[in-house]
Amino acid sequence: MSSIKKVVLAYSGGLDTSVIMPWLKENYDCEVVAFVADVGQGDEELEGIEAKALASGASECYVVDLKEEMVADYIYPTLKTGAVYEGTYLLGTSMARPIIAKAQVEVALKVGADAVAHGCTGKGNDQVRFESCFAALAPNLKVIAPWREWDLDSRESLLDYLAERDIPCAASAKKIYSRDGNAWHLSTEGGELEDPWCEPSAEIWPLTNSPEEAPNEAQYVHIGIEKGEIIAVDGEKLSPYQCLVALNKPAALHGVGRIDIVENRLVGMKSRGCYETPGGTVMVTALRALEELVLDKECRKWKNTFANEFAHLVYDGRWFTPLKDSILAGAEALAQTFTGEIVVKLYKGNVTAVQKRSPNSLYSEDFATFGADDVYNQSHAEGFIRLFSLSSRITALSKENTK
Amino acid sequence: MSSIKKVVLAYSGGLDTSVIMPWLKENYDCEVVAFVADVGQGDEELEGIEAKALASGASECYVVDLKEEMVADYIYPTLKTGAVYEGTYLLGTSMARPIIAKAQVEVALKVGADAVAHGCTGKGNDQVRFESCFAALAPNLKVIAPWREWDLDSRESLLDYLAERDIPCAASAKKIYSRDGNAWHLSTEGGELEDPWCEPSAEIWPLTNSPEEAPNEAQYVHIGIEKGEIIAVDGEKLSPYQCLVALNKPAALHGVGRIDIVENRLVGMKSRGCYETPGGTVMVTALRALEELVLDKECRKWKNTFANEFAHLVYDGRWFTPLKDSILAGAEALAQTFTGEIVVKLYKGNVTAVQKRSPNSLYSEDFATFGADDVYNQSHAEGFIRLFSLSSRITALSKENTK
Amino acid sequence: MSSIKKVVLAYSGGLDTSVIMPWLKENYDCEVVAFVADVGQGDEELEGIEAKALASGASECYVVDLKEEMVADYIYPTLKTGAVYEGTYLLGTSMARPIIAKAQVEVALKVGADAVAHGCTGKGNDQVRFESCFAALAPNLKVIAPWREWDLDSRESLLDYLAERDIPCAASAKKIYSRDGNAWHLSTEGGELEDPWCEPSAEIWPLTNSPEEAPNEAQYVHIGIEKGEIIAVDGEKLSPYQCLVALNKPAALHGVGRIDIVENRLVGMKSRGCYETPGGTVMVTALRALEELVLDKECRKWKNTFANEFAHLVYDGRWFTPLKDSILAGAEALAQTFTGEIVVKLYKGNVTAVQKRSPNSLYSEDFATFGADDVYNQSHAEGFIRLFSLSSRITALSKENTK
Amino acid sequence: MSSIKKVVLAYSGGLDTSVIMPWLKENYDCEVVAFVADVGQGDEELEGIEAKALASGASECYVVDLKEEMVADYIYPTLKTGAVYEGTYLLGTSMARPIIAKAQVEVALKVGADAVAHGCTGKGNDQVRFESCFAALAPNLKVIAPWREWDLDSRESLLDYLAERDIPCAASAKKIYSRDGNAWHLSTEGGELEDPWCEPSAEIWPLTNSPEEAPNEAQYVHIGIEKGEIIAVDGEKLSPYQCLVALNKPAALHGVGRIDIVENRLVGMKSRGCYETPGGTVMVTALRALEELVLDKECRKWKNTFANEFAHLVYDGRWFTPLKDSILAGAEALAQTFTGEIVVKLYKGNVTAVQKRSPNSLYSEDFATFGADDVYNQSHAEGFIRLFSLSSRITALSKENTK
Repeated sequence: MSSIKKVVLAYSGGLDTSVIMPWLKENYDCEVVAFVADVGQGDEELEGIEAKALASGASECYVVDLKEEMVADYIYPTLKTGAVYEGTYLLGTSMARPIIAKAQVEVALKVGADAVAHGCTGKGNDQVRFESCFAALAPNLKVIAPWREWDLDSRESLLDYLAERDIPCAASAKKIYSRDGNAWHLSTEGGELEDPWCEPSAEIWPLTNSPEEAPNEAQYVHIGIEKGEIIAVDGEKLSPYQCLVALNKPAALHGVGRIDIVENRLVGMKSRGCYETPGGTVMVTALRALEELVLDKECRKWKNTFANEFAHLVYDGRWFTPLKDSILAGAEALAQTFTGEIVVKLYKGNVTAVQKRSPNSLYSEDFATFGADDVYNQSHAEGFIRLFSLSSRITALSKENTK
Repeated sequence: MSSIKKVVLAYSGGLDTSVIMPWLKENYDCEVVAFVADVGQGDEELEGIEAKALASGASECYVVDLKEEMVADYIYPTLKTGAVYEGTYLLGTSMARPIIAKAQVEVALKVGADAVAHGCTGKGNDQVRFESCFAALAPNLKVIAPWREWDLDSRESLLDYLAERDIPCAASAKKIYSRDGNAWHLSTEGGELEDPWCEPSAEIWPLTNSPEEAPNEAQYVHIGIEKGEIIAVDGEKLSPYQCLVALNKPAALHGVGRIDIVENRLVGMKSRGCYETPGGTVMVTALRALEELVLDKECRKWKNTFANEFAHLVYDGRWFTPLKDSILAGAEALAQTFTGEIVVKLYKGNVTAVQKRSPNSLYSEDFATFGADDVYNQSHAEGFIRLFSLSSRITALSKENTK
Repeated sequence: MSSIKKVVLAYSGGLDTSVIMPWLKENYDCEVVAFVADVGQGDEELEGIEAKALASGASECYVVDLKEEMVADYIYPTLKTGAVYEGTYLLGTSMARPIIAKAQVEVALKVGADAVAHGCTGKGNDQVRFESCFAALAPNLKVIAPWREWDLDSRESLLDYLAERDIPCAASAKKIYSRDGNAWHLSTEGGELEDPWCEPSAEIWPLTNSPEEAPNEAQYVHIGIEKGEIIAVDGEKLSPYQCLVALNKPAALHGVGRIDIVENRLVGMKSRGCYETPGGTVMVTALRALEELVLDKECRKWKNTFANEFAHLVYDGRWFTPLKDSILAGAEALAQTFTGEIVVKLYKGNVTAVQKRSPNSLYSEDFATFGADDVYNQSHAEGFIRLFSLSSRITALSKENTK
Repeated sequence: MSSIKKVVLAYSGGLDTSVIMPWLKENYDCEVVAFVADVGQGDEELEGIEAKALASGASECYVVDLKEEMVADYIYPTLKTGAVYEGTYLLGTSMARPIIAKAQVEVALKVGADAVAHGCTGKGNDQVRFESCFAALAPNLKVIAPWREWDLDSRESLLDYLAERDIPCAASAKKIYSRDGNAWHLSTEGGELEDPWCEPSAEIWPLTNSPEEAPNEAQYVHIGIEKGEIIAVDGEKLSPYQCLVALNKPAALHGVGRIDIVENRLVGMKSRGCYETPGGTVMVTALRALEELVLDKECRKWKNTFANEFAHLVYDGRWFTPLKDSILAGAEALAQTFTGEIVVKLYKGNVTAVQKRSPNSLYSEDFATFGADDVYNQSHAEGFIRLFSLSSRITALSKENTK
C-alpha cells in the first residue's frame, strides 16, 4: 500500500465509516481527519457526531453545513435543466455527491492531507461519483476505498472489528435496508425490494404518508418562481433550502413524492430503489407547469434533449466537467423567462398544478386584444399546411410518376 | 372556386359538419358523400348517424369501424416509441387523425370523389394533421376546409344556416366546451379553461371520477405484455381494443388519467386543454415499468431521444412519412424484449406499478447464482472509475501544468 | 391593400429591387426609403448605389456597413456551435439575413416607417428568414413582399416595367444564374444547375480557382485562435472581418471552398446550389482541428448534437429566438478552451490542418511526465472493460438462463 | 492464474502475437489454437501464416476469410447510418473488430476452448472492443490479455523472449509506427505523429499517393447504388467487397482518403492517428450525394442524430447490443429509397460528386410538369411564414405588453 500521511474520510457516523476510521489508521499508519457533510440528512444523524468521530480515532472532525449551497448551486441548476433520470428518478443522491466531494477536497487541502477516503461499496454508483469529482478537483490526492480493499464482508464482521478494538457503536447487528438521505430525498434499497415482483411494505417509506394515510382534505400551495428558481411558498419569500423545507412538510403529509423503480446503475447492472422526494416532486411539478406558459414548441423539444443528457451526467457523477458547464449555460439561458406563480393541489399522493400564470406567458388571456387578424388570420393556415406538407406531397407525386 | 364533382366529408353528426354538408353542395355544386369514422367515440354519437347524414343532404354515408385498427396500428406503435408530447400529453387526438384520414381517402378513391372535406377550424392542429395525411396518401385530391372559407363565425350563425334550410339539428345554441373523444381519450377545451389561472370545474371531466370521488379501496390490475404490446388484462387475453376498454373502466373509476396542460400547437400558439386518458395512462405506466427491467442504460437514453422526436411527429400529423417509418422501426427493434407482467395499483388518481417481472429482465433476482466474481468483481470498479474519469483527471492536470 | 405611409425597402441595386421601388410607390401610394446593407458583397455592387436608389424613386437611401458586425456577431457565434447545414452547407446566405433584417428594422424605426419590404421571391428561404426576423424584432411593422403580390413573372416584364417609367437600369435581359454574395460566400443557382446530373461549368464559380487552375505549389497559413474565434492570420492580429478577408485570398487562389449540393429548403422542396466559401472553409477546418485537442469525447458528441440543431435554426431564419440564445450559450461555454494555433496547408482544392497546438490540449506531448502509473495504469483497463461490458454480459447470461 | 485448457488466440503473425503464443503455453499450461482473420489486410501479411503459427507453438491454425462478410454485414450497415466518428474518422479499425471477435468465438466454441486471447495493448480501444464482443457472444469464455499481465515492456524484450526460445521471427528490432489494416483502411500511429505540431512525413501514408503525386488528369467514376448499398462501379455489378476493391485503386492513385486527426479514445485519453481510407471515402461521398436527392429535411436532421450515436457505438465496440439493432433498423428503413447513380470526380486528393440521379429523387427535374400551382403556389408562402413565425411574433408582442 502506498504511503499516506493524512487522510480525510467522509464520515457519516454509521457502522461502515466507524470501522473505516480505525482500519485506515491500522492499514495506512496515518492520521485520519473526519469530514461530515450536513446536507440535511437530519439532526439525529448529526447529533454528537463530532464526539463519536474522535472516539473512533479521528484526529479532528469537520462538520460542514452544505444545505443552502446544495439546494442553490446543485439542485436548482439541475431543476432548470429539467433532468430526470430514466424518466422518473429525481437524482437525490446523485446531486448531493459533487458538493460533498468538493467540500471534502477543500478540507483535505486545508489540513494538508494527501488522501481522501469514502465508505461507498464497490458495487454502487457513489464510488464513481465521488472519485470522478476527486479526479476533477484534486487529481493528485490519493483515493482510498476500503470496501474495495478489505475482506470484511458482512455487518457482523464489521461489528466484530469494532468490538475487538473496544470502539463503542450503537449500530444493530441487523439492518434490513440501505438508506441515503438529505434535504431533498430519502432512498431505500435492499430487503424485500430485491424482488421487483414484491410490493414495498410500509416500512420502506419513513418520510411520507401513504396516499391512504394522507388527509381526506386537499391542500393548496402557492409557489413563487423567478428565473427558474422557487423563491416563495404561500407568499413567503424564502431561501432555496427553506423553500425545500417548506414544501417537504405538506407534500410528505399528503403522500406526494414516492417512486419505486428499477434503474440502470452506471456500473452496468440494475438495482431497485424506492425514493421519497416530497418537496422536490412539488418543485418539479411547479416548474414544468410554468414552462408550459413560457417556452415555445422548439424550445420545449430542445429542453427535453438536454434534460436527457443532463440526467445521465448528474447520475454518473460527471458534475465537474465542461459538458456540465455547457448544458447548464444553455438551460440558464432558457430559464430567464421562467418567472411566475403556480398553485398546486396536494391530495392523497397527487400533486397537480391547478393555477398558472406568468408575466412572460406566451398563452395570453387577452390574445384577442392583439386583434385576431393582426396576429393570426385563419386564411394563413392553408398556406402553412401546403408548405408544411409539401415534401409529403412531392414524395407521393414522385411515387406516382415512377409507377 | 375550383370545379368539384364529388366530395367525401368527414362527418361527425355534430353542428359543424351538419352545416358543411349543405354548404358544400351549394357552394361547390357537387355530390357529398358522408364518411363517419368509428374510433370509439361512443354509441350515442354514432346512433342514427347515417339517417342524419342523408337527411342533411349526403348522397351516401359510410360508417367505418376503425377501433381495432386504431389501437393496433396507431396507438400500440406509438406506445412502443414512448412518445409523450411535451412530457405530458398522451396524443389521443393526434393518433386518431391519420387513421381517419386514411379511411376517408379510401372511401374517396372507392366512390371516385375528386375532393375531401373536413370540419376542422382554421386555428387548430387537426386541419394540419388531416391535410398532411391527405397530401401523403392522395396528393391529387382537392381538400376543402369550409371553416377557412366561409364567413359563418358563431354557433348562432351555424344554427341559422340550418334553420333557413329546414335541416333538423339537435344541437343547442350554447355549447361551452369543445371536445374530441375516442376509445383512448376525451379532450376538453374552452370555457373557463381559457384562463390558466382557473382550476377546472367538475364539468370538465365527463369520463373519469375525481380522486375525491374515487373508491376508498385500491384496486390491483394485472397486465400481460408481449413485445411491447398489452395482450392481457387480469389474466384474460384480449385484442388491443378490448385491452383498452378493459383498462378504461377501472382507471376511470379510480380517477386515473386526468391531465390539465397548456401546450404548444403546431400552428404557433398555445392552447389549454384537459385530457382524460384513463386506460391509456395505465398502459403507459405498465410499459414503462416493464422497460425498467429489460432495457440497459444506453438503450433507455436513446429511447428518450427518439420518443421526443416521435411525439412531435405524431402531434404534427407527420404520420405517413419516412421519418415515422424510421423511428418506428428502431422502436420495434427495441420492443422485442418487452415481454412480461406488471401489476398496477389504482387508487384515488394514482396508478403505480407495484409488481414487475419479465423473462428478459436484466435485473435478475438470482444474480448471485451467476457467481458474484464471474459477473461482477468489486475490484473491477477501481479500474472502471480510473478510466471513466481519466479525461477529468487529465483536464485537471493540464490546468495545473499551465498555471 | 392596407394603408402604408412609409416603407423601408431592402435595396440591392439589382433589377428586382429597382422595380419594387416604383411599384411600391404606385401600389401603396407611399414614401419609399432605400436601405442598403453592406455585408461585403463587393464594391462594384455598392458603387453609386445611393444615386441609383434616388433615381429609382427613393426618398432617402441608407447604406449601412455591417461587415464587422456580421462576422463578429453572426458568423463567429455560428462557427462556435459547429453548425453546418445538412453536413455541407456553411450557411453563408442564412447567417447574413438576420443582421440585414435587424439593421433594416432599425432604419424603419428611425425614419418612422410603418412597413418594410424585400425583394425575395415566393419560393425561397429568404422570405421566411427576413419575415421571421421582422416578426421577432418589430411585430407591428407591416411586411410587403412584392414577388408574392404582383403579376410580373419574368425578367423581361421587369425590364419593361422600368422602361415604361423611364427608369434607367443596367440590367441585361438575360441572366442565367441567381447569385447571392457577401464577405463569407457566394452562392449560385439556376441555369444548367437545375439538372443535378449536370456537372457545373466553369462559369458557376466566379470567386475561386478550380483545383486544376490552382498553383502547383502548396501554401501554408498559420491561424491564431482564442476562445473559439480566429484572431490572427500568419502572425498578424486582425479583426474578425479582416481575418476573413485575409483567408479568402489564399483559399480562393488554391481552389478551396467549393461545394455543389442539393439541399432541402425550409419551404418543403429541394434546390440545387453551388457555394464558394473560401476563407470560411479554412476557418471551419482550423476550428475543428483545434477542437480535436481540447474537447473530450462526451463534449464532442454533445457538440454534434447542438450543431445539428443550430444549423437548422440558422438555415430557417430562427435567429432572434430563445432557442438560439440557449444553444449559443452552451456553445460559448464549451468554446472557452478553444485557444491555440493551427497551420493549414492549401493545395489544389484541399485544405488540411497539418499542425495543431493549444495550451488547453488534453493530448499532452509530455503525457509521460505525469507518470504513466499516476494517470493511466494498464491494469485499470480490465476493470473498465468488465464494467463497461457488464450489461452485455448480463444480457447474454440471461438469454442462456431462459433457454 | 485460473485454470485454462485450451485457448484460441487472435493471431496476426506479427511480433506481439508470436510472443503471446509461447507465453500462453508457459503461463497457462494450455493448448493454444491460432485464429487468423482475413479482413483484407493483404497477401503479404497472410502468406505462410499457418506454418508460422504452428512453428510458434500453435496446435492448430484456422485462417478464416471474412472479407465479404465484413463489407456486407458490418461496413455497409454502418454506412447506411451515416456514422463518422468525431466528424472525420471512418471507423476502419472499429468496424473490423466485431466480426473478428465473432469469428474467433465461433472457432473457440468449435474447438471446445475455454478461453480466448488477443494481442491488444492495455492503453487502446481494441481491447475494449474485443472483450465487449466476447462478453456479448460468449460470456462464459475466459479472456486473456497478455499485454495487461506480463512485464515485457519493449520491442527488444519481446524479441529476446523469442530468441531465448529459438522461435524464428522476421520482425525487426526497430518499428517506428503502429499500424492496422484491412480492406477498408490502414491506420498509422506513433513516431513523429506523437507531436500534433508535426506534419506527417511521406512514410506515414503507404497506401495512397499524396495529392502532389497524384495524376494531373482527373478521373471520373460511376457508382451504382441500391437501397443504400454500392452495387456497381463503372457499370459493372460487383459484390460489396469487390466494389470496395474496385474503388480503392483509383482513389489511392488520386490521393483520396487521407485524414490526420487527434481523436478521443474510449479509455479516456486522446491519440493522434493518420488514416487512409481511399475507396471508403469515395463510398461515403457517393452515398451522401444520393441522400441529398432522396431524404427530406426532417429525415436528414434525424439521420444526423442517429449517425452521431452510431459512430460512438461502433467506435466503442458496442456492436452486439440492442442499441445497435435499434439504430440500424431505423437506418435501414430510411435507406429503402437510397437507389440511384452518382458520378464522382477524383483529382489530387479531392473526391467530388458531380452528377447525381435517383428514381426516388424529391428534386424533380420536371417539377414544372406537376404544375406549379398544384404543388407550390407562391401565395402559400405568406401563410406559412405567418404561422412559422407566430411564436416569435407573440413573444415580441408579449414583451411590448409587459413593458
